[in-house]
Amino acid sequence: MRCLVTGCAGFIGSTLTDRLLSAGHTVIGIDNLSTGLPRFLDRATEWTSFELIHGNLARISHALKAMRGIDQVFHMAANADVRFGTAHPRRDIEQNTLVTHNVLEAMRLHGTKRIMFASTGSVYGEAQVFPTPENAPFPVQTSFYAVSKLAAEGLIAAYCEGFGFQSHIFRFVSILGERYTHGHVFDFYSQLLADPSKLKILGDGHQRKSYLYVQDCIDAIMIALEKADGRVNIFNLGTNEYCRVDDSIRWICERLNLKPALEYTGGARGWVGDSPFIFLDCAKMRSLGWRPKLSIRDGIEATVDFLKSNPWVMESR
Amino acid sequence: MRCLVTGCAGFIGSTLTDRLLSAGHTVIGIDNLSTGLPRFLDRATEWTSFELIHGNLARISHALKAMRGIDQVFHMAANADVRFGTAHPRRDIEQNTLVTHNVLEAMRLHGTKRIMFASTGSVYGEAQVFPTPENAPFPVQTSFYAVSKLAAEGLIAAYCEGFGFQSHIFRFVSILGERYTHGHVFDFYSQLLADPSKLKILGDGHQRKSYLYVQDCIDAIMIALEKADGRVNIFNLGTNEYCRVDDSIRWICERLNLKPALEYTGGARGWVGDSPFIFLDCAKMRSLGWRPKLSIRDGIEATVDFLKSNPWVMESR
Repeated sequence: MRCLVTGCAGFIGSTLTDRLLSAGHTVIGIDNLSTGLPRFLDRATEWTSFELIHGNLARISHALKAMRGIDQVFHMAANADVRFGTAHPRRDIEQNTLVTHNVLEAMRLHGTKRIMFASTGSVYGEAQVFPTPENAPFPVQTSFYAVSKLAAEGLIAAYCEGFGFQSHIFRFVSILGERYTHGHVFDFYSQLLADPSKLKILGDGHQRKSYLYVQDCIDAIMIALEKADGRVNIFNLGTNEYCRVDDSIRWICERLNLKPALEYTGGARGWVGDSPFIFLDCAKMRSLGWRPKLSIRDGIEATVDFLKSNPWVMESR
Repeated sequence: MRCLVTGCAGFIGSTLTDRLLSAGHTVIGIDNLSTGLPRFLDRATEWTSFELIHGNLARISHALKAMRGIDQVFHMAANADVRFGTAHPRRDIEQNTLVTHNVLEAMRLHGTKRIMFASTGSVYGEAQVFPTPENAPFPVQTSFYAVSKLAAEGLIAAYCEGFGFQSHIFRFVSILGERYTHGHVFDFYSQLLADPSKLKILGDGHQRKSYLYVQDCIDAIMIALEKADGRVNIFNLGTNEYCRVDDSIRWICERLNLKPALEYTGGARGWVGDSPFIFLDCAKMRSLGWRPKLSIRDGIEATVDFLKSNPWVMESR
């Protein structure tokens, strides 16, 4: 199959690209390299079945060029950092919603009808039901990031209804593992690298969060694409557990053999729009036979090990 | 209070403008007159407390100009026709989502913190629960119009969370009454005017729909603004009944003393993304003491009477 992976030089996008190539697919990857790292494509570029387009999907002409002859789109390109919405109130809408619209329009104009989309568990806002299922009560949004992803989900569903597309939409918890380049483990590791004696934590450390190892995430995507044949297939992706920020700090520090002084900014939320409890019900995905192989702790440790053995990643940010 | 009414020359916007002026408020109205009709402002322009800005909210400079000194925004401007999304896949996002973003940014920059928003019951997609409450199971979207309104709702909620705004969001069923300019009664009346002997109906006539009389809608808005003091206040607005398209046709024809031959296009949906059953649970709004005064039949008859006695409206479309 001829696959288009948007955001192919990103953390999850590059990992997916490698998996698709290994499975025998042809992959056209597109990335604007604003946050993606070319070194993540070192393995992909060894395949003759891989082609990289350095392009910007905010321009419909680039989206159209990338879409030629594509059978299946994996739309991973995004502004992926949930925390800075209020500082850039238009960025998420532009990079997540409008870019998705360009991808969908390019698909329509080229007759490509299958799209996999990387959405987020943050579309549940401050959920009222835990673990939170896909059909939880209609949530009130709390972050620009989540709104922009929810709007993209909606556009995809409307193209499915209006133009006969098929979609697989995945609402991720935070993803961890090799090639991880942003998020709390990155921030903590970065702080400890600069000064191992102290660590500043956003919030009170009691926030309950969920994480999933990147290879488990890719496993789920591959299984769902094979087995779920509805028009709009929506799946939560996470493990059957959650941890507190304080647990995560303990695991990171133990892995690094450090005992920093902890300094909390305080409050139940780490930032504006932060959800103090994220725990998704993944029974729908598990019903297809998928099981994550790594626990949250395993995933966090794998991430620390990756950052430790790849100092160039820290330097590239 | 100094109020900004966007889409002030539209059906609902102009009716709201009149009500606000009567209640003693100063109203700055803005409209690009793409679908709004200046004659709907004949009454408003008699007030010295009314000012009209002919402007386009797709331009942030126009939004900023209109927002000076405003205490409360009533955001009614929209592409309000749900039916033609697939023919113009970007229009709803531009006119409903991005315009709302401009309004919110102008509010933030001017320090205006209260917004009332005209959303739609179509955000429930093809609902699974009837009557459908505000916290119904997280729906899958089916139309570009609904997606664009849902994204606007989400942006408003994110501004409430991020910047301390307060919002009142109303999910309307179809609104009927004086100054009605588009929708099924308009289309049927228009057809019968051209040829009273036949009537073409989109779908099979069995679709179950809900309608609300415009003055009842405005009543609800005024009551909710006074009584609901949460950060994000979301209300369904409709009557406690629904009707079939065939009922509506019978009432319209009886009112006009016509017996046209009926010709159905067939199928459960009138158009792509049409929901075959819309019936909202409005208990939350009713708990504030609001009761609609007109039944659906009353509202449809008032609409027919309005169109009959205002032939210039048909000529202006």
